Amino acid sequence: MDYSVEKLREEKVFKDPVHRYVHVRDRVIWDLIGTKEFQRLRRIKQLGTTFLTFHGAEHTRFTHSLGVYEIIRRIVDDVFDGRPEWNKEERLLSLCAGLLHDLGHGPFSHSFEKVFNLDHEEFTLKIILGDTEVNKILSKVSEDFPKKVAEVIAKTYKNKLVVSLISSQIDADRMDYLQRDAYFTGVSYGHFDMERILRVMRPREDQVVIKHSGMHAVEDYIMSRYQMYWQVYFHPVTRSAEVILTKIFHRAKHLYEQSYSFSLPPVHFYSLFEGNCTLQDYLKMDEAVFQYYFQIWQDEKDSILSDLCRRFMNRNLFKYVEFDPAKEYKKLAELSALFAKAGLDPEYYLVVDSSSDLPYDFYRPGEEEERLPIHLLMKNGDIRELSRESEIVDAISGKRRTDHKLYYPADFIHDDRTKRNIKKQIRTLLEI
Amino acid sequence: MDYSVEKLREEKVFKDPVHRYVHVRDRVIWDLIGTKEFQRLRRIKQLGTTFLTFHGAEHTRFTHSLGVYEIIRRIVDDVFDGRPEWNKEERLLSLCAGLLHDLGHGPFSHSFEKVFNLDHEEFTLKIILGDTEVNKILSKVSEDFPKKVAEVIAKTYKNKLVVSLISSQIDADRMDYLQRDAYFTGVSYGHFDMERILRVMRPREDQVVIKHSGMHAVEDYIMSRYQMYWQVYFHPVTRSAEVILTKIFHRAKHLYEQSYSFSLPPVHFYSLFEGNCTLQDYLKMDEAVFQYYFQIWQDEKDSILSDLCRRFMNRNLFKYVEFDPAKEYKKLAELSALFAKAGLDPEYYLVVDSSSDLPYDFYRPGEEEERLPIHLLMKNGDIRELSRESEIVDAISGKRRTDHKLYYPADFIHDDRTKRNIKKQIRTLLEI
Amino acid sequence: MDYSVEKLREEKVFKDPVHRYVHVRDRVIWDLIGTKEFQRLRRIKQLGTTFLTFHGAEHTRFTHSLGVYEIIRRIVDDVFDGRPEWNKEERLLSLCAGLLHDLGHGPFSHSFEKVFNLDHEEFTLKIILGDTEVNKILSKVSEDFPKKVAEVIAKTYKNKLVVSLISSQIDADRMDYLQRDAYFTGVSYGHFDMERILRVMRPREDQVVIKHSGMHAVEDYIMSRYQMYWQVYFHPVTRSAEVILTKIFHRAKHLYEQSYSFSLPPVHFYSLFEGNCTLQDYLKMDEAVFQYYFQIWQDEKDSILSDLCRRFMNRNLFKYVEFDPAKEYKKLAELSALFAKAGLDPEYYLVVDSSSDLPYDFYRPGEEEERLPIHLLMKNGDIRELSRESEIVDAISGKRRTDHKLYYPADFIHDDRTKRNIKKQIRTLLEI
Amino acid sequence: MDYSVEKLREEKVFKDPVHRYVHVRDRVIWDLIGTKEFQRLRRIKQLGTTFLTFHGAEHTRFTHSLGVYEIIRRIVDDVFDGRPEWNKEERLLSLCAGLLHDLGHGPFSHSFEKVFNLDHEEFTLKIILGDTEVNKILSKVSEDFPKKVAEVIAKTYKNKLVVSLISSQIDADRMDYLQRDAYFTGVSYGHFDMERILRVMRPREDQVVIKHSGMHAVEDYIMSRYQMYWQVYFHPVTRSAEVILTKIFHRAKHLYEQSYSFSLPPVHFYSLFEGNCTLQDYLKMDEAVFQYYFQIWQDEKDSILSDLCRRFMNRNLFKYVEFDPAKEYKKLAELSALFAKAGLDPEYYLVVDSSSDLPYDFYRPGEEEERLPIHLLMKNGDIRELSRESEIVDAISGKRRTDHKLYYPADFIHDDRTKRNIKKQIRTLLEI
Repeated sequence: MDYSVEKLREEKVFKDPVHRYVHVRDRVIWDLIGTKEFQRLRRIKQLGTTFLTFHGAEHTRFTHSLGVYEIIRRIVDDVFDGRPEWNKEERLLSLCAGLLHDLGHGPFSHSFEKVFNLDHEEFTLKIILGDTEVNKILSKVSEDFPKKVAEVIAKTYKNKLVVSLISSQIDADRMDYLQRDAYFTGVSYGHFDMERILRVMRPREDQVVIKHSGMHAVEDYIMSRYQMYWQVYFHPVTRSAEVILTKIFHRAKHLYEQSYSFSLPPVHFYSLFEGNCTLQDYLKMDEAVFQYYFQIWQDEKDSILSDLCRRFMNRNLFKYVEFDPAKEYKKLAELSALFAKAGLDPEYYLVVDSSSDLPYDFYRPGEEEERLPIHLLMKNGDIRELSRESEIVDAISGKRRTDHKLYYPADFIHDDRTKRNIKKQIRTLLEI
Repeated sequence: MDYSVEKLREEKVFKDPVHRYVHVRDRVIWDLIGTKEFQRLRRIKQLGTTFLTFHGAEHTRFTHSLGVYEIIRRIVDDVFDGRPEWNKEERLLSLCAGLLHDLGHGPFSHSFEKVFNLDHEEFTLKIILGDTEVNKILSKVSEDFPKKVAEVIAKTYKNKLVVSLISSQIDADRMDYLQRDAYFTGVSYGHFDMERILRVMRPREDQVVIKHSGMHAVEDYIMSRYQMYWQVYFHPVTRSAEVILTKIFHRAKHLYEQSYSFSLPPVHFYSLFEGNCTLQDYLKMDEAVFQYYFQIWQDEKDSILSDLCRRFMNRNLFKYVEFDPAKEYKKLAELSALFAKAGLDPEYYLVVDSSSDLPYDFYRPGEEEERLPIHLLMKNGDIRELSRESEIVDAISGKRRTDHKLYYPADFIHDDRTKRNIKKQIRTLLEI
Repeated sequence: MDYSVEKLREEKVFKDPVHRYVHVRDRVIWDLIGTKEFQRLRRIKQLGTTFLTFHGAEHTRFTHSLGVYEIIRRIVDDVFDGRPEWNKEERLLSLCAGLLHDLGHGPFSHSFEKVFNLDHEEFTLKIILGDTEVNKILSKVSEDFPKKVAEVIAKTYKNKLVVSLISSQIDADRMDYLQRDAYFTGVSYGHFDMERILRVMRPREDQVVIKHSGMHAVEDYIMSRYQMYWQVYFHPVTRSAEVILTKIFHRAKHLYEQSYSFSLPPVHFYSLFEGNCTLQDYLKMDEAVFQYYFQIWQDEKDSILSDLCRRFMNRNLFKYVEFDPAKEYKKLAELSALFAKAGLDPEYYLVVDSSSDLPYDFYRPGEEEERLPIHLLMKNGDIRELSRESEIVDAISGKRRTDHKLYYPADFIHDDRTKRNIKKQIRTLLEI
Repeated sequence: MDYSVEKLREEKVFKDPVHRYVHVRDRVIWDLIGTKEFQRLRRIKQLGTTFLTFHGAEHTRFTHSLGVYEIIRRIVDDVFDGRPEWNKEERLLSLCAGLLHDLGHGPFSHSFEKVFNLDHEEFTLKIILGDTEVNKILSKVSEDFPKKVAEVIAKTYKNKLVVSLISSQIDADRMDYLQRDAYFTGVSYGHFDMERILRVMRPREDQVVIKHSGMHAVEDYIMSRYQMYWQVYFHPVTRSAEVILTKIFHRAKHLYEQSYSFSLPPVHFYSLFEGNCTLQDYLKMDEAVFQYYFQIWQDEKDSILSDLCRRFMNRNLFKYVEFDPAKEYKKLAELSALFAKAGLDPEYYLVVDSSSDLPYDFYRPGEEEERLPIHLLMKNGDIRELSRESEIVDAISGKRRTDHKLYYPADFIHDDRTKRNIKKQIRTLLEI
């Protein structure tokens, strides 16, 4: 039988708290889920360190990936199927790209990628194209199928409609994670009427468009996204945990470069420290492995590494104050000097972190586009960019909002048993 | 200030998907949550291997422990407060016991305790009474406070009303986990009207009783519990994962006893293998540490250990058939012999697993009691045991239901490239 | 175009709080919804007087009827379609029967039918077969189509599979009303996993069966039903309102028979009083019309009618005590005499009401069946009646539970300004 | 006992789908709920004719009034209690004002007030101050208590903090109806984190303020409100029903003024037609009474009245086109002439309806204020108006959006059996 259209004898379902059930009928999808590369996503949290702020946020990229697949399945099977603009030949490709789009995420990928200069999308493509179980399955569909899946994820695939299913301002990726992250954190934001949005999606040559009658549901989605960014994704406590994690990676790398003798040789990190991480090295990394090291490193003799690891493992995070880097750079220099005097290396213990978001950003000629904007299908058949129709979206469109904070170890700064005067000066400068 | 009544300047809240918010006002509670022993619960999943069946079930004992605390807080502050039967002096004790009752759980504790002959409750008591951050905080309340907390958890505390808050057929522990496990798995069962139950709880000298007007809500709770047991907790796929995990522990111990040379010396397991696990050893164990070993052991040269670890990590579990150990012991012996001939050690690859539950079991004179039964407070002030009033509960009361399954590696048994005839005989016997 | 398969140009949707959306594609369905007979259901509450107990229960038979239609639509289009046991020709018939099954309900039909000796199902058939807008539309499908719809509703249609969709222990009617009534009353009961049940339904020659793997979801449904009966449908306060309503009807009829001169001639009731209510008379009745009379009758000079109407309109209901008619008939006689002495006509002011339910009742040879039992489809293809497989259902099966209460006007009995001694005796007998 | 502080022996609860339970402890509140004026609200729908668009929207002002009471109860008992800015003496007043604020609503009050030139708030005050059961109960608290309740509702009470609980941009009234209307219609909008908002409310001398940390929850509330306005409250189908209702009232009044002889004399309407409606007249009106007349009037000989009533009762509403009154007045005149020629009185059959909303409007010096703006309590104790802090709110603040539609009877205009040419011209002008 042609593997690309082979169906399971009985549909399989996964119970999912967000979509109720994830339905799998295609043999290819079932086989992909069973690969070790996909199962590895069970050991990578969807929201990295956010569980330290919202204790329910322990869900993984595995569940999110299934969710993205399910949304695409519903779009192509329930909404697009039978419409002339939709090429049924692209069905399996769309499903696979949705399922696999996050395959290359590393452990705590936000900090991890920043410090080790890696890109998860690059590793997604390597897994799909390299010597892996995933590649073997995709290759059984057709020789060039892995390449096509990779192209969709890399947004270079020729059929932009397929690309837009996982890479636009209102793609299956975003629709799943907003709802899923809201569900697991327990926040009230993140809800929007996805069923309505799915019903009004229409395929066009180069993208998904939304029937004008669904505009309000889309506005609600945009607002949900805005709220989730500021309430969850950029939460200052999460950012504190990321700051500490980043500094752990930095310190470990620094020690390695200084030929420091670790009590447990960090073999899993060598290739990262040396910048020559292979696909096989990469696939052995997950959050359990990293936490194992953090656990051990709590007892390392290097006091910075052990302190940072203890902070991370026991959630003894840095506190923060508002900070304007443009205006307060002098103060930062002063604080750095005081920290050093107080015996705290400012490189590790005094950190500025910035977050910013564009709630809805659309392409304007001459500007570089990141994600495809949302287009409405008007009653007369015209296509109009969302912000030209929606007053609410227009009002917030393109407004970048940035938030800067300065992180520091409050417990140490408030401990007056040593360096009392210096700490007092620090507190005065920090206004705490 | 008296530490036992010290309040935080501002109430702290944790966003919780089940209870919406967990409220903390007491300094003692806040400090306990911050200890490293309590934070370790973030690395112990509430439902062990259930995430391999229900992918949303990635929540940890940390979230459950906060939930139990919150339910007790609501009972004592919103319902019991001001009633003559309730001794306000027991408030903090009740809160602490609720928060800490699961503190001694080990990684994947179901299999773990079975193989290494450990008891998590014993370790809970050791943590509370031993040289730990938790003990330091409890001791600040009063010298004998740690002992009292331990007694409540051990059910030996003199005030049985306090004990019943966390150890009865309808305690805060069960009320939290039923709802939480339902929420994270996404199943429809597990819902009941807790708010109603809380409102009709009344303190009596030796236990919590339920006003008769709340009987239907309690029936609903009992039915939820019954459904959760059979739909989630005893799910045959989860039991397959537990079977494999158990066999991994067995194999590693066996190899250690045979002085096998591990490529990575399993230092974290030594004390377990030798049966002399100290509190300090124990506290270093969590699921990340264990998964690290499983990850490494996938490449061990011992083919049983590596195969089992690969199965666990990549979710390539055993399949099962119904099995009646009382009647089919001969068949089991036959299968064992065939497995051995086929090159599969039956000790590791042919496993009977049984689950059983009493949906509602109440104490009858002369029988040993496990959990306190549920008592109703009648309008005339009498107390009656629930099953004497509720037809539904009476109907299912004391009916033990047991389910036996025989687990085996289907992939191997279906692979006819080797030992074809023997495998055929095995399949005939298994009727697959 | 053939009217029976004519589709709307664009699917119409109704926003529904229970099913999210009700989808209509068929022209016939759309036209039926627009008839005045169907729109009349907007003026008949689904739960009669229950809104006086649960204030949210203001939903009407209109919304329920749409819900039943939607469930059947999902069963036949999403689950049955394409299966050999399902005859696609029966699709439209099933949808119409589901939509119209409650068409003949009268205002406050429980009390109404009892007093005036009417049967709503009979009127449903009359509307379908008589000179109505509904009949005109059904006749456009085919000459015998109205008759077939009527037969399905009357359970005499030859294809019992179609009948079972709206008349079995687990039909679309019950699945909708349990969920809908739970939603609008706000109770925690009434929830079950309908999506799961729909997925495991299978068509068989003479009925719908349920795959064995869905047994737990069905158990949950049976328990929900049990809880809803006792928590909502038989709520003693609702029964008090029904008692009063029944007595209003009785009194008005009695006065009419006595040629009493009403200040507002109750023209809408004449045919009811005389027992010759035509279809046209019937269709003019709805709850607004009845409430209009109750409103006016509050000022009637007959003190019984005006008192009862004031009680109903202003929710000044009767109170109740438990009562065992088998044992306490003597006490009832005594009370009757005392009521008469106290100036209260016991015919109207001292009322015994009984409710009873069989949580799950299945046909046994020789007994009369009411609703088709639930049958499970076993893995080996066998069919087994549910209670033979489910311990829970077996435990509660066939257990009829009855509840008797004695209703009386507490305000009057407690008012000691008149007939003080008699009232005291009454209170003593009532033990209040 | 002092009636103003008298408590019920046992707390009473109402099951409420939105707030789960409404709790009543105060004797005064319990007695007010039992009055006939309050019970009358059960016969006034919360959303008037919206049930013709969203079939779930059958909930009444009774449920909403209980909800507003419950929110205020939670604010004053759980949040304000014990804070120095809150005067506990105002507690009962706040509860009563919340419960009774909508008491004067008439049947279908939107159209009703417009046509008969009435104001529901005026009648609320009359009920509170007049010869009513409500007044008797309030007077038992203290002689001037009814007057104080009336003043709070009229926003003239001296303590503006109390006024702001039911009359500000984020009062208990709005918080209840947004959630309740969303729940009963089933739309996805209308949700916001009320629990969070309640937790961050703080009493100040002249109003409720919101702690800055709750700003995002308030933004979410503002957006919900915006969506509910455009998705539910201003829904064009609902407005069509209102148009017809308005025209029914107009026609009946016109006929009365022309001494038309009604087959059923509309006694309930006389005082409305004559503009001398007393409190006693008013209290006899409810939606059942009005529907009774509409029912009867379907058979009136005046063809306009009977046609409009049949349209309303059977939901055969007018259709609409977009219309710009500023630009298209000439077209309207042309259409009017054509309608007249076609035999349709344009006064009744060609209607322009406009809706407009300010999503968030705040007071600026010199402008007239309608509702108090929302003020944030900054960390440093300052008070700042919301739109100065929130970019989202600032973006939409003060943007009035208006929507105009032209309504007409499409069935008639498309019926080419008569006046074919004229109707064709009409269709051309309407572009349908």
